[in-house]
Amino acid sequence: MLNIMSKDIKFRSIGYVETDSNEDLIKVDKEKVVSKVILFEEFTEALDGVEDFSHLFIIFHLHKVVSRRSALKIHPRRRLDLPLVGVFATKSPYRPNPIGLTLVELIEIKGNIVKVKGLDAIDGTPVIDIKPYFPPDAALKVRAPKWLTKLRKINYL
Amino acid sequence: MLNIMSKDIKFRSIGYVETDSNEDLIKVDKEKVVSKVILFEEFTEALDGVEDFSHLFIIFHLHKVVSRRSALKIHPRRRLDLPLVGVFATKSPYRPNPIGLTLVELIEIKGNIVKVKGLDAIDGTPVIDIKPYFPPDAALKVRAPKWLTKLRKINYL
Repeated sequence: MLNIMSKDIKFRSIGYVETDSNEDLIKVDKEKVVSKVILFEEFTEALDGVEDFSHLFIIFHLHKVVSRRSALKIHPRRRLDLPLVGVFATKSPYRPNPIGLTLVELIEIKGNIVKVKGLDAIDGTPVIDIKPYFPPDAALKVRAPKWLTKLRKINYL
Repeated sequence: MLNIMSKDIKFRSIGYVETDSNEDLIKVDKEKVVSKVILFEEFTEALDGVEDFSHLFIIFHLHKVVSRRSALKIHPRRRLDLPLVGVFATKSPYRPNPIGLTLVELIEIKGNIVKVKGLDAIDGTPVIDIKPYFPPDAALKVRAPKWLTKLRKINYL
């Protein structure tokens, strides 16, 4: 399995995020943030038909985050009153691969510019992919840990 | 912006998919497929607490797909009766960055092995990230194009 284990995966950004948001995203209510995903012009054509979707997944590179392969457990949002859990049980940016995934609401598309609401990515974030949100992407009968409830109460998702 | 445009992004696989599924995933009902995500043992600890979630997002590398930067518009599922749309309006694997994203149901975790249902990734697929599905990851008042309805009728999502 050695050949699988050492596998490097290389992507290229398809565009970047333009927003007023700074590094303190943790403090803002991301639901209200309006950002633009600026695609490199060579990809404009790939947006045809995206306007028919109300919601999109944006996959992006957390480029300011230093990959911490050693720190595999964290307190969500650094809150010591929440349990120490594995990073894969959280959306912490400090994970083996600093990759971000956010469901956003599409506001409008003009040429190579995709205006969205709810993107928790800072200005200049490289975007890797845009995928449409299909209705079956919603899970039913969802179960989640108790600590998540504490975060939701203070709008900290 | 040249420095942003040419940005290479490098990740490393955290594990791989083990499944009976072959290359003909398009023909199977992925909802019923049970697969295992085998994490490399160094990441086992990062799974602590994941068992409290009923659903997970699996982000993976479509390693058998050749990146087609030139083909930016396709007929979904190669069906000529469906409109020609941009790849970002589809979940086609033929996209600028061959990255897969699937919402799966968690069955169980044993050590470094995550057993899931609904993963449309073939055997040996490198996994990049695992993220928990939080209840707000579901969008409300969803709008989607008409062609999607045609696909849904034949279980082709």
